[in-house]
Amino acid sequence: MVEPANTVGLPVNPTPLLKDELDIVIPTIRNLDFLEMWRPFLQPYHLIIVQDGDPSKKIHVPEGYDYELYNRNDINRILGPKASCISFKDSACRCFGYMVSKKKYIFTIDDDCFVAKDPSGKAVNALEQHIKNLLCPSSPFFFNTLYDPYREGADFVRGYPFSLREGVSTAVSHGLWLNIPDYDAPTQLVKPKERNTRYVDAVMTIPKGTLFPMCGMNLAFDRDLIGPAMYFGLMGDGQPIGRYDDMWAGWCIKVICDHLSLGVKTGLPYIYHSKASNPFVNLRKEYKGIFWQEEIIPFFQNAKLSKEAVTVQQCYIELSKMVKEKLSSLDPYFDKLADAMVTWIEAWDELNPPAANGKA
Amino acid sequence: MVEPANTVGLPVNPTPLLKDELDIVIPTIRNLDFLEMWRPFLQPYHLIIVQDGDPSKKIHVPEGYDYELYNRNDINRILGPKASCISFKDSACRCFGYMVSKKKYIFTIDDDCFVAKDPSGKAVNALEQHIKNLLCPSSPFFFNTLYDPYREGADFVRGYPFSLREGVSTAVSHGLWLNIPDYDAPTQLVKPKERNTRYVDAVMTIPKGTLFPMCGMNLAFDRDLIGPAMYFGLMGDGQPIGRYDDMWAGWCIKVICDHLSLGVKTGLPYIYHSKASNPFVNLRKEYKGIFWQEEIIPFFQNAKLSKEAVTVQQCYIELSKMVKEKLSSLDPYFDKLADAMVTWIEAWDELNPPAANGKA
Repeated sequence: MVEPANTVGLPVNPTPLLKDELDIVIPTIRNLDFLEMWRPFLQPYHLIIVQDGDPSKKIHVPEGYDYELYNRNDINRILGPKASCISFKDSACRCFGYMVSKKKYIFTIDDDCFVAKDPSGKAVNALEQHIKNLLCPSSPFFFNTLYDPYREGADFVRGYPFSLREGVSTAVSHGLWLNIPDYDAPTQLVKPKERNTRYVDAVMTIPKGTLFPMCGMNLAFDRDLIGPAMYFGLMGDGQPIGRYDDMWAGWCIKVICDHLSLGVKTGLPYIYHSKASNPFVNLRKEYKGIFWQEEIIPFFQNAKLSKEAVTVQQCYIELSKMVKEKLSSLDPYFDKLADAMVTWIEAWDELNPPAANGKA
Repeated sequence: MVEPANTVGLPVNPTPLLKDELDIVIPTIRNLDFLEMWRPFLQPYHLIIVQDGDPSKKIHVPEGYDYELYNRNDINRILGPKASCISFKDSACRCFGYMVSKKKYIFTIDDDCFVAKDPSGKAVNALEQHIKNLLCPSSPFFFNTLYDPYREGADFVRGYPFSLREGVSTAVSHGLWLNIPDYDAPTQLVKPKERNTRYVDAVMTIPKGTLFPMCGMNLAFDRDLIGPAMYFGLMGDGQPIGRYDDMWAGWCIKVICDHLSLGVKTGLPYIYHSKASNPFVNLRKEYKGIFWQEEIIPFFQNAKLSKEAVTVQQCYIELSKMVKEKLSSLDPYFDKLADAMVTWIEAWDELNPPAANGKA
């Protein structure tokens, strides 16, 4: 039986990494009591809370945390008609937080994620590991059998080309989950009791040309490098699909990272995922995605961006055109989604004007 | 400090998996005392020992092991002029053992590899893990973030296409090393004291389209599926290069596995690698490979086999032609190597006539 760590009495980290360069984005519909447990690791950071659902509900944030909170009224006010690209009644709304952040790095975490223990029983500082992952390079062009070559005690093995050892910048750090694994509804239904108890002490780069299922539960990224592609799509209220928000973002960011020679890492850190969502509800949200993904994934596997696309925004706009052209035949939803992708970029650029951050 | 396991007193495995379907191939120039330690796990299996160097030297094999032994005179006698494709004074000679085996599976191990301990202190039965890896499918077309989805306690995560969950047959299982990592000479020189102490409890499929540095120290494969491509090239005596035998095989098998939709797994099992080879000697053997690989790897990354190549032999002959055409300009050695690749296939087919095993 795997259990969360006990962090009671642990002191708040006095020297948190990147304290002023990272925002923590949390989508929620309830009180954020789970932050009590994260206090030693997360309290020094600024939170961006995206309140989903009823805006009149008051969300309680534990004492001592510095935060800004946006509900649906705020989103509508800030984005105006462009607010249509932000999902409602779905945790996909979190990407609004990415957009309003002014920091270089984002860590996003679900409110049912607790602190995990490593095999020695020590509480895992997930954010610290994400930052390590983001600050050291990735190696997407050739596989290193001893996992992350930049980690202490490891290196590139014999036969690894020297010209590739400098690596590339890491744009995304994808963390994993102990206890409740991130399964789809059919797998949840078939294996209701399966728990992830295996702590795999590894970080690795997902090779270029390989797609992966990106989960938004425990995720960090470099906003400057990949932010505008971290759009979680149209899910929830009024949409025919749910639980594919992070998957959508994962497919898009991977194609763009491959095109721009940026790295995506997966593995450590683990969080403790406390509660399985209802598989019957999930099945209703997912079932279209389950058959659509059989066509969407080959679409992304074959998506080739042009040489002219040199910024994330340009790449994303190109992708949106391909979505419209190639996926609209699957369902009119994709026509709408392609438009929302464009709206998202317009809104992003409005809130993050190129002049202000010195980027194109 | 990481140490090998103590296997004294462990009983010999009474129900070894695939006992009559697997040969263990060991290249050596010395007495095989290291097999004492492996007795609980390896004694039930048949050994094929390929004696390198002076054929008049007598190799001692521990009591109780069933084996056949080939020295250079045997290789010359059996292959005649085709013996030219088998390296001399280099552990690349091991591939002769793959050729004379009549079994479906091969496990090959170096004579300086001892039994590793897992984090609980238990001796690792490396061969058993290799067999597990080979008997369950691979998933090369999409990345699974919880590693091998076929392993107990794991599965495909949310967002993994259902159409890909059946996987493909696993052709190769690449194991890792605790203690002395498999570093090249420059890295050995720079980090003489680095030891691998990290036991990563994972097996994973190397994605399609991604090359990896295959080490021959602790390797298993399905001879029926990939045997004819497991040629360790021309190394050692009379050749301008050494320590690239397994790398060469790894590049070739990966391109062919990708073409034929076969899987390559890496990760568990670990062996304990006891002794670092001399980095100065290694540098002399490796230095041409170190710059050649900068061109060879892009060559293999871009190698496209034709639809007509449907057997491993056909794929390998196509590859040999590409090597001759594209790499001979790098060095006349590759012209010779391309010819040796053809000779290897001829010798393989002579010793493994299609009629005898029912395969084309």
